[in-house]
Amino acid sequence: MKKSYLLTPGPTPLPPEVLDALSRPIIHHRTDVFRKIIAEAIENLKYILQTKNDVFILASSGTGAMEASVVNVLSSADYALTIEGGKFGQRWTEICKAYGINCDVLEVEWGKAVEPEVIQERLRKNPKIKAVFVTHCETSTGVVNDIEGIAEVVAKTDAVLIVDAISSLGAMPIKTDKWGIDIVVAGSQKGLMLPPGLAFVSVSKKALKMAQEAMSPNYYFSFKKAKKAFDSSDTPFTPAIPLVIALNEALNLLRSDGLDNLFAKYKKMACATRAAVFALGLKLLSPDAASDAVTAIKLPQNIDGAKLVKVMRTEHGVWVAGGQAELKGKIIRIAHMGYIKESDILIAISSLEKVLDSMGYKFQVGAGLKAAEDIFSK
Amino acid sequence: MKKSYLLTPGPTPLPPEVLDALSRPIIHHRTDVFRKIIAEAIENLKYILQTKNDVFILASSGTGAMEASVVNVLSSADYALTIEGGKFGQRWTEICKAYGINCDVLEVEWGKAVEPEVIQERLRKNPKIKAVFVTHCETSTGVVNDIEGIAEVVAKTDAVLIVDAISSLGAMPIKTDKWGIDIVVAGSQKGLMLPPGLAFVSVSKKALKMAQEAMSPNYYFSFKKAKKAFDSSDTPFTPAIPLVIALNEALNLLRSDGLDNLFAKYKKMACATRAAVFALGLKLLSPDAASDAVTAIKLPQNIDGAKLVKVMRTEHGVWVAGGQAELKGKIIRIAHMGYIKESDILIAISSLEKVLDSMGYKFQVGAGLKAAEDIFSK
Repeated sequence: MKKSYLLTPGPTPLPPEVLDALSRPIIHHRTDVFRKIIAEAIENLKYILQTKNDVFILASSGTGAMEASVVNVLSSADYALTIEGGKFGQRWTEICKAYGINCDVLEVEWGKAVEPEVIQERLRKNPKIKAVFVTHCETSTGVVNDIEGIAEVVAKTDAVLIVDAISSLGAMPIKTDKWGIDIVVAGSQKGLMLPPGLAFVSVSKKALKMAQEAMSPNYYFSFKKAKKAFDSSDTPFTPAIPLVIALNEALNLLRSDGLDNLFAKYKKMACATRAAVFALGLKLLSPDAASDAVTAIKLPQNIDGAKLVKVMRTEHGVWVAGGQAELKGKIIRIAHMGYIKESDILIAISSLEKVLDSMGYKFQVGAGLKAAEDIFSK
Repeated sequence: MKKSYLLTPGPTPLPPEVLDALSRPIIHHRTDVFRKIIAEAIENLKYILQTKNDVFILASSGTGAMEASVVNVLSSADYALTIEGGKFGQRWTEICKAYGINCDVLEVEWGKAVEPEVIQERLRKNPKIKAVFVTHCETSTGVVNDIEGIAEVVAKTDAVLIVDAISSLGAMPIKTDKWGIDIVVAGSQKGLMLPPGLAFVSVSKKALKMAQEAMSPNYYFSFKKAKKAFDSSDTPFTPAIPLVIALNEALNLLRSDGLDNLFAKYKKMACATRAAVFALGLKLLSPDAASDAVTAIKLPQNIDGAKLVKVMRTEHGVWVAGGQAELKGKIIRIAHMGYIKESDILIAISSLEKVLDSMGYKFQVGAGLKAAEDIFSK
């Protein structure tokens, strides 16, 4: 008789429409019916990515699409700038290095956003840099980077801008064309309300041209193969059929209120979560650059974060994430994206209050809930 | 009010247990519950692959696992032997070439199996060959290759044997350890009764050792990363959670009667299909090496194969596959693997008879059905 509330920053809960789509009898993919679904899914993805660029669907997790971005655009011994302000920023460096790319690594304190001016300076110092890799919302710290500002400084150079929007797409605006992002990478299991297993890339003409010339070896993740297939609403390899069908259901749901209303809804949930954090006398890990997709909360030194997360799960069925790597045990992360609603946020805060109280942390019980409700009722 | 019968060699129909597993609320993957599911799935895969080797689950289509086998074992400029007897044999060559591997290509007439002696001769002529890539069941032609015989000749050399069992695993025996196959590659959407989106590899100690030394660049498909994660029933990247849960359901179903009974069932369906083909005065594309997973039927010259496939679909809801590449329009392919039963085979033969009759082909109507039923009632 347990009831679970999933507020982790991936996977996120699935709406009934998605579960329904996943459980339909399977159809064949080399058919007009499925090609029509692919075409609609691509159109929906372009809408949410705010782009007219080509968009490809890959059967892989988000990391596969990150690797695709590296291997299609760069060759061994090319120069790239990677921004490391958390675990997923580091992944860009790891992938680049695996392919022999020379990485200029810009380390940013975990919990801080990167300053576009610092990127500008790095690009000025090394004009050989062909690609800038940055994370939009760094899931490990809850930081949102200023992609618009970064795009402005990258646009003054010949480099392409490649953005990991895996945990922001659907929860926060990505104005791909207006800002001028060459490649946006996204995944299914975050803001898009789907299970993991699909990844997405939008690719500018400039990046596609680089893909014609880049020499990094690749096959499964080839943009050339993807472009050729998706131009006829086909896929180069067998697609993850039920996930693609569910993708369309999810994107139709997300589109139904319009993008502005969608993002306003998540922003309100993020504000309410942050208000609760302050009311409980806690601090944000990234107060100056807090994402609207996930909130990372610093825990008092005498509170064991791993235990807190575990007790919230076992006692209240509330699933939040702990810290990763150097933040292990020191933070908790509450997601507000995808099929997470105001009621879920209240449940998470209520559980957090109860467990903090039981662990001896001193605060006014109910203060977090009240602060959140104040925001929601505005 | 249409009713569909899916007899294509991937995707194949999904049993209700799998559809049910796919539509459950999602759970988080970094948990004891999910780790237990992974451990059980790996155990089940080892059973069906008849191996004690390491087995990894990848979030990709089967081609991703093929690429993984190439990049983890070989380095640029290494020598490999690829066997091309159809579209999927050619894929091995394409992937190897994408990574700068020197391919010794053994071309085999489409519809024929490769002779182990010919492989032996090629290996003798070029002792630099480090890996032999072969297709167990070539989906494009319905040919089954003699993996046991091939393994015997490869074992006399230092080369590793890498087998694409994407469309045979679950339908035909793969005795990985007994035969001595270093890497077996499989996919979810064929004999294993799952949607596409997962791929599997079993990797011998020898192949894992080569993975320590091979220099082909890779990241998402790294065996080293997979080994490290799966050793603690974890995955290096976010797994396709519902597909992994459904995998376990499907494998438990396949295991329930024992492997010998399972394979005998598909062999009977294959025999019945072939008996029907002969009774209709038609021929097999690969009479000397017909697979028990899929039957490829040669069509008379005056029958348009594309039209035949289309009319079977639109008039009777029966989905069989046509020919690919050089076989386009010339054959049809009927699958008998996964959640396909004797009744489905009868429905397919009945539809084939009706449409052949309507297209002016002369034969005794009902003869195919009778021949199949004779086999089934034995």
